[in-house]
Amino acid sequence: MATSEIFEELEIIRRGCDELLLEEELAHKLAAGRPLRVKAGFDPTAPDLHLGHTVLLNKMRHLQDLGHHALFLIGDFTGMIGDPSGKNTTRPALTRDQVVENAHSYTDQVFKILKPEQTEVVFNSTWMDKVDAAGLIRLAATHTVARMLERDDFGKRYQANKPIALHEFLYPLIQGYDSVALQADIELGGTDQKFNLLMGRELQKHFGQAAQCVLTMPLLEGLDGINKMSKSAGNYIGIAEHPAEIFGKLMSISDELMWRYADLLSFEPLSVVRQWRQEVEQGKNPRDIKVLLAQEIVARFHSRKDAEFALADFEARFRRGAIPSDICEKALHAGQEGLPIAQLLKQAGLTASTTEALRMIEQGGVKLNGEKISDKGIRLCRGEIAVVQVGKRKFARVVLS
Amino acid sequence: MATSEIFEELEIIRRGCDELLLEEELAHKLAAGRPLRVKAGFDPTAPDLHLGHTVLLNKMRHLQDLGHHALFLIGDFTGMIGDPSGKNTTRPALTRDQVVENAHSYTDQVFKILKPEQTEVVFNSTWMDKVDAAGLIRLAATHTVARMLERDDFGKRYQANKPIALHEFLYPLIQGYDSVALQADIELGGTDQKFNLLMGRELQKHFGQAAQCVLTMPLLEGLDGINKMSKSAGNYIGIAEHPAEIFGKLMSISDELMWRYADLLSFEPLSVVRQWRQEVEQGKNPRDIKVLLAQEIVARFHSRKDAEFALADFEARFRRGAIPSDICEKALHAGQEGLPIAQLLKQAGLTASTTEALRMIEQGGVKLNGEKISDKGIRLCRGEIAVVQVGKRKFARVVLS
Repeated sequence: MATSEIFEELEIIRRGCDELLLEEELAHKLAAGRPLRVKAGFDPTAPDLHLGHTVLLNKMRHLQDLGHHALFLIGDFTGMIGDPSGKNTTRPALTRDQVVENAHSYTDQVFKILKPEQTEVVFNSTWMDKVDAAGLIRLAATHTVARMLERDDFGKRYQANKPIALHEFLYPLIQGYDSVALQADIELGGTDQKFNLLMGRELQKHFGQAAQCVLTMPLLEGLDGINKMSKSAGNYIGIAEHPAEIFGKLMSISDELMWRYADLLSFEPLSVVRQWRQEVEQGKNPRDIKVLLAQEIVARFHSRKDAEFALADFEARFRRGAIPSDICEKALHAGQEGLPIAQLLKQAGLTASTTEALRMIEQGGVKLNGEKISDKGIRLCRGEIAVVQVGKRKFARVVLS
Repeated sequence: MATSEIFEELEIIRRGCDELLLEEELAHKLAAGRPLRVKAGFDPTAPDLHLGHTVLLNKMRHLQDLGHHALFLIGDFTGMIGDPSGKNTTRPALTRDQVVENAHSYTDQVFKILKPEQTEVVFNSTWMDKVDAAGLIRLAATHTVARMLERDDFGKRYQANKPIALHEFLYPLIQGYDSVALQADIELGGTDQKFNLLMGRELQKHFGQAAQCVLTMPLLEGLDGINKMSKSAGNYIGIAEHPAEIFGKLMSISDELMWRYADLLSFEPLSVVRQWRQEVEQGKNPRDIKVLLAQEIVARFHSRKDAEFALADFEARFRRGAIPSDICEKALHAGQEGLPIAQLLKQAGLTASTTEALRMIEQGGVKLNGEKISDKGIRLCRGEIAVVQVGKRKFARVVLS
């Protein structure tokens, strides 16, 4: 492969990434011209994907577009063990049937991003079930206790006298051994996975293989632009959500977060994203970019037609309520029990106090999604998005997390 | 069983021991009246026993004399793994054939102490070979990293930044799991094994069994009375040594060490040992006790007849050299290259300097085991015992370690 082509591939691979170790090794692998074996590991318990999970899948897809081979690894071996200490009831041991079922659910979702013909779905139980206690002991002997305590979360827990169950030290080794079994050329993972990805490098060297490159991707911020996107934080966009929901949530993000999403979620080439930036700098409304991004993502997980409907519906709702197009957007925290409407109005800056908010409701001056409200007990919950209006001219679009 | 009987049994069991955990639990087990399952683990690599090793075996024998059942456990599972880090070349992986061969060599030796009909020789590969990686992970999950670092040697090594390979943390768990597999009632071990013996207790509780009691025995001092008896220190008495060697070495120990050996090596009842002490306090020569002890031990590993011969030979040698019966005994350090005769004479206090020693040899005034010597280059090596004489009246019996 020509040096210029390698340079182009590397630019695409690096896009949005946190770290690439080691770039010169990857350049060397690319130069060989053969399809690389691209590994990424997934938890077998959580097949209900949101956009945060897709950051890694998108990167895999870009590597597929460059001709490489994706190894979609389901960590079912440890999944079937569950939490052996019995302390974490949220990790029940999965049966093999459940693993297979979850795997189907995974592929239903991930093949909206990955190319099936360039994807191999693999299960680490395939090789780990054959490893006996003696084999695991030999694997454990390749690393020291001190090396394991270098992993950030282990070190911190040890320092804080928080228990680390001994088997937790074995899991990174198993993850690393998966790279040996798969002869991976490169492994992708979140920044929080760096230590485990490096284990793969070390164990491959130990077993006489060429060490895999390691590419870490940042954790995607949720709708609030602050916390990592997650179900428990309620700041997520599920890929199976209704097109209108996905569209609306994406329209609600801040302008700053929009650029982050463009880097990590859009498949538009870097050159196009650069052009968008230029246009916005020259005065274009960032909203227009959000529309493009929202349409692209709805189209990916539903269809182009759904994306068009979603846009039309979104615009119609705004027209119905005579909502100005430069409406201000607010990300608010709903908490476990939802946010009472009066507090919402105050936090959104539409009233000076909750007392004023309650008075405005009594006077019939508050609209929720274009409908006048009279119930002062209304609460908005996590994940809800709404347009609120106080009086004639005060509007806000609120996104609750 | 009557309380008085339990009390007597406990006194016998406690004799010479370092710690018994927990005595009330053991009393409870004894009260049930059934034969207890007494576990002790042995390394499959070193079947060449010395008296230091027999301390534990003697305790097992005493438990057999009380009607209990000995489980002589050979740790072949880890022995067949060897040192998986490859760093310790002194621990090559054993083959199954070697394990079996070593086991025969063990039983040849230990059945001079243990009663074969109350002894079961067991191999932990029997159950550990059936444990898979998932099983070992579940075992590892029962303990924390912090708990493992409580083991004295692990903690010290970690503090000193000396590497601890991860598999080393798994070995105490395997040793503990052996107690589960064997349903041990009590485990015996050296004081340095206490942590591992306690693992057995903890894992038995985890697996719903009654926890084993733990009995630690002190490490026997070698002939020098200071260092732990070991082959590498050269201060040992091998049980396969010639009767005259065993006899002679035992006669060379200090009076203080004699009492230690009486506690840990003699099968004479405590009442007899107490009587010996009384007699010595009343003026009896401790030499006479050493003779009894040496005869008992030679008889154990050879025969009563051998013991009588050894005594007769020992006395004859003394008579031949006209050696006084209250000859002073000196334990000297030979080092790797042996101790030159002139230094030996000085260190034994027979000459004021090595110069004087050399002059005495030149003058024909030095005898080694009754023979006049003229070679000033003679060196005595580790393990050697000799009677040296300077002039007519200066004698010493030297034991080199």
